[in-house]
Amino acid sequence: MNMTIPMKQSRTISTRLVLPPDTNNHETIFGGRVMAYIDEIAAISSMKHSNKSVVTASIDSVDFISAARVGDILELEAVVSSTGRTSMEVYVRVRSINVLTGKSKMTTESFVTMVAVDEDGKPIPVPSVVPETEEEKRLFDTGQARREYRKQRKTLK
Amino acid sequence: MNMTIPMKQSRTISTRLVLPPDTNNHETIFGGRVMAYIDEIAAISSMKHSNKSVVTASIDSVDFISAARVGDILELEAVVSSTGRTSMEVYVRVRSINVLTGKSKMTTESFVTMVAVDEDGKPIPVPSVVPETEEEKRLFDTGQARREYRKQRKTLK
Amino acid sequence: MNMTIPMKQSRTISTRLVLPPDTNNHETIFGGRVMAYIDEIAAISSMKHSNKSVVTASIDSVDFISAARVGDILELEAVVSSTGRTSMEVYVRVRSINVLTGKSKMTTESFVTMVAVDEDGKPIPVPSVVPETEEEKRLFDTGQARREYRKQRKTLK
Amino acid sequence: MNMTIPMKQSRTISTRLVLPPDTNNHETIFGGRVMAYIDEIAAISSMKHSNKSVVTASIDSVDFISAARVGDILELEAVVSSTGRTSMEVYVRVRSINVLTGKSKMTTESFVTMVAVDEDGKPIPVPSVVPETEEEKRLFDTGQARREYRKQRKTLK
Amino acid sequence: MNMTIPMKQSRTISTRLVLPPDTNNHETIFGGRVMAYIDEIAAISSMKHSNKSVVTASIDSVDFISAARVGDILELEAVVSSTGRTSMEVYVRVRSINVLTGKSKMTTESFVTMVAVDEDGKPIPVPSVVPETEEEKRLFDTGQARREYRKQRKTLK
Amino acid sequence: MNMTIPMKQSRTISTRLVLPPDTNNHETIFGGRVMAYIDEIAAISSMKHSNKSVVTASIDSVDFISAARVGDILELEAVVSSTGRTSMEVYVRVRSINVLTGKSKMTTESFVTMVAVDEDGKPIPVPSVVPETEEEKRLFDTGQARREYRKQRKTLK
Ligand SMILES: CC(C)(COP(=O)(O)OP(=O)(O)OC[C@H]1O[C@@H](n2cnc3c(N)ncnc32)[C@H](O)[C@@H]1OP(=O)(O)O)[C@@H](O)C(=O)NCCC(=O)NCCS
Ligand SMILES: CC(C)(COP(=O)(O)OP(=O)(O)OC[C@H]1O[C@@H](n2cnc3c(N)ncnc32)[C@H](O)[C@@H]1OP(=O)(O)O)[C@@H](O)C(=O)NCCC(=O)NCCS
Ligand SMILES: CC(C)(COP(=O)(O)OP(=O)(O)OC[C@H]1O[C@@H](n2cnc3c(N)ncnc32)[C@H](O)[C@@H]1OP(=O)(O)O)[C@@H](O)C(=O)NCCC(=O)NCCS
Ligand SMILES: CC(C)(COP(=O)(O)OP(=O)(O)OC[C@H]1O[C@@H](n2cnc3c(N)ncnc32)[C@H](O)[C@@H]1OP(=O)(O)O)[C@@H](O)C(=O)NCCC(=O)NCCS
Repeated sequence: MNMTIPMKQSRTISTRLVLPPDTNNHETIFGGRVMAYIDEIAAISSMKHSNKSVVTASIDSVDFISAARVGDILELEAVVSSTGRTSMEVYVRVRSINVLTGKSKMTTESFVTMVAVDEDGKPIPVPSVVPETEEEKRLFDTGQARREYRKQRKTLK
Repeated sequence: MNMTIPMKQSRTISTRLVLPPDTNNHETIFGGRVMAYIDEIAAISSMKHSNKSVVTASIDSVDFISAARVGDILELEAVVSSTGRTSMEVYVRVRSINVLTGKSKMTTESFVTMVAVDEDGKPIPVPSVVPETEEEKRLFDTGQARREYRKQRKTLK
Repeated sequence: MNMTIPMKQSRTISTRLVLPPDTNNHETIFGGRVMAYIDEIAAISSMKHSNKSVVTASIDSVDFISAARVGDILELEAVVSSTGRTSMEVYVRVRSINVLTGKSKMTTESFVTMVAVDEDGKPIPVPSVVPETEEEKRLFDTGQARREYRKQRKTLK
Repeated sequence: MNMTIPMKQSRTISTRLVLPPDTNNHETIFGGRVMAYIDEIAAISSMKHSNKSVVTASIDSVDFISAARVGDILELEAVVSSTGRTSMEVYVRVRSINVLTGKSKMTTESFVTMVAVDEDGKPIPVPSVVPETEEEKRLFDTGQARREYRKQRKTLK
Repeated sequence: MNMTIPMKQSRTISTRLVLPPDTNNHETIFGGRVMAYIDEIAAISSMKHSNKSVVTASIDSVDFISAARVGDILELEAVVSSTGRTSMEVYVRVRSINVLTGKSKMTTESFVTMVAVDEDGKPIPVPSVVPETEEEKRLFDTGQARREYRKQRKTLK
Repeated sequence: MNMTIPMKQSRTISTRLVLPPDTNNHETIFGGRVMAYIDEIAAISSMKHSNKSVVTASIDSVDFISAARVGDILELEAVVSSTGRTSMEVYVRVRSINVLTGKSKMTTESFVTMVAVDEDGKPIPVPSVVPETEEEKRLFDTGQARREYRKQRKTLK
């Protein structure tokens, strides 16, 4: 498959309200809940890129920089940042917005690797992503280094 | 409060994956689940406009034009389309995307009225919305008629 | 299919407790959650009438007259109010009860149109509903006008 | 408190659709899910009787006589069957209805003991229940024996 | 099937955090939620014993001795305590731990009967359980009496 | 605070059944759902160690080595592997068990950093963990290196 797809096609936004069931007894959102949202938007973004079903192969380390609270708005943004033969690396950024002040804060960001699979769960090829803007190119160009690093990490464990 | 806010500030997007628990035994999404998503994004959009807490005052009639299925992507878009003293009318549009074909279909659209409230649930004033583009202006200009109609409707019931 | 079914056969009641995950940070229930309950009971009522699977074709406008709070009891009542060839109009009424005072308040009411469908989602005929009491007859007799109105509405959009 | 309340005041009905998330990989509902529904309706019924908050003190043994499946309707009925000083015994009956045939089957029945509590979770008095029909009287008259038996059971464990 | 399996093979532990959606407005966990956890761990334990799919046949009476609160840890432990031809009796014990004091309290205990079933839901034979320690033997030896009692109970109802 | 706590005190096990709502349309569990389970058990383990409330500071990269399917059993195990002044590093291992064959497979493993916090979300000191067995010592001794690495990672981003 030598089709190519512009990076903007996989750009995906999802906005959520932080609700009581998402939170612990400090009324701040669980890290695990944010991870679940990150995984869902990464799946959507990579499906928009590849027109295929996908599974999560790995999630890079995540630092929770600030807490989101009940009533805050959570804004997730994802884009396919680089592609292999059957895998797609998705960059996900999460911001929280305090409704009363309108102030927004970075919550976390991560890279997720999704793999396109057929009916039997076997990996299948995906089109290559093509960056267009300067920002997209920076994201794309550092993808190869991140991929090398992930391979090493997996071997070491 | 005579502050004004450009319409684009309340523009909100939320993208979801249709999952098995959202669906009936035909594997199509429940109308009620779509309504819950519509209400959530309308709340977020009106909170971004007003920087206040809100409650749902009414949801206009909804026609479900086509079914969304397990594995489809649901794309919701909302914007505050017109404002009263304490109420905000939010326009919400829902499209579904078939992942394998990339084809997108209109699922439904509706107008939701959200009212800004204080700690005791009492209505409080909101800034006025200002449309900027042609499309925004069309949405805004027809708001007054829709508001009249809703008042009548409420009286008649 | 020229079978007829008395209206009382589809009468359905569902009682729920308003729980923390159903509510926003004012501890009042989300409008969207109420809509999901309305859709579920309308589906049950129309399945009891038709002995068929159903999908939601439309939900008429809903005004939320009063708020229900955590700990309140929500009482939903539904009945098939009129029938077409393949569609059933269901009337749904929602009341909330304050446990400590025993006082009950109207929350909202709406008409939902459900369509009976076969395995492929194609509309299939349903039996006609027959009203028996005075109240049932009033509900039934106004059904034709509501149906006309809905057709117009769909065309206009 | 020497108030008395007729048994019919606590009569409560709740109707649910069995959905995929309620079921195991045989598409039959989990016993634990049915137990959760039984507990919820028993709480509602005893709150309607007492106008107080309640906690579950015990649930009598439950035999699952037949399975309910995805797409079935579950019909729960509850009534306060007898009262102590602070406790209320609630009788709950669960039937499932196959939508396509309209046939209904007994799923299970049980007695649940709910205790009225104040803000600190301390037991507080409840009004006495008064049976009116023959069937209500039978349910009521056997309540004393069931209560004795429960006390013994608790001591033996 | 005359295979035998040591009792320890079905020993299963599950630890949970009590979260807001599990609780009522006193912030204590619902009895029905605890029942759902009991059913899930009993299913897991009996599947580890039999390598088969299972359904819940009955749950013995449950006394809720103390309340668990939001933020508490819930510790469930289960083991197959005795076996019939197609049925397995599972003993389940639930304790709650207060995080700040580290103190643990008994919440409840119960016996659940799970039946191994084939694809059509028909009961199929299971291996016999063999107790090894003194404690396991006590649990096992009283199983026959509990089974007799359950048969009587079912007949009487 | 110069208290020390043996590593085994925080050892925590949680066993779950993979259910339809946890899975995508290939019937394999979502990576995000596994992450949510990892976060929950890490919180429990670190609360058992510290007797304090905690928040998630970071989750190390996760590789999903094999898929878990509907009907599989998921077995999570966690232990506090090393401690800082206010932070606790928790090692989490996830295995899936195929019920019909009894075969178990590694799903993933990760290190999660939890921080003990007071009522206002401010970090507070935790006791030091003390490894006892050989295996525990290996886990503990490599903790310093992992901590250094995490600090670097955070600076680089
Ligand atoms: C919405 C609510 C706050 C309005 O209260 P009210 O006493 O009618 O207040 P007012 O008459 O001052 O109306 C306030 C605004 O709401 C608007 N409004 C009231 N009912 C409305 C309806 N059914 N549809 C659209 N707008 C409505 C009014 O037009 C007014 O708008 P304006 O200030 O822009 O002119 C009140 O009805 C309520 O609390 N309802 C329950 C809301 C809720 O909990 N919803 C969730 C599910 S139950
Ligand atoms: C509802 C649906 C089956 C109707 O299909 P259709 O091709 O329009 O079929 P028809 O024109 O033959 O109409 C069938 C019946 O539905 C009625 N109907 C169609 N759209 C309707 C609407 N918006 N409101 C009320 N009734 C409607 C028609 O009047 C007709 O009724 P009748 O047989 O009693 O005269 C189809 O639009 C659909 O599948 N929609 C999605 C349903 C869904 O999945 N909802 C959940 C959330 S998306
Ligand atoms: C139920 C509870 C309030 C009873 O408290 P207590 O200290 O035993 O109080 P008392 O001895 O005064 O008993 C109060 C009533 O409960 C009844 N009761 C207590 N345990 C019972 C049991 N296991 N089964 C049935 N009734 C019981 C008593 O008979 C008494 O009834 P009466 O006033 O009508 O004569 C207490 O055990 C409790 O809080 N349990 C946890 C409840 C809970 O949180 N459940 C949810 C899941 S854990
Ligand atoms: C459980 C079930 C399979 C038993 O079927 P059955 O036709 O009674 O089968 P049998 O008479 O051959 O009994 C099979 C075994 O179940 C046991 N059993 C049946 N009912 C029981 C009960 N209420 N309590 C305990 N054991 C029971 C029998 O003793 C027998 O055990 P054994 O083989 O070890 O001697 C059947 O009743 C059923 O499908 N119930 C619904 C289960 C369900 O879906 N539960 C979830 C919530 S509704």
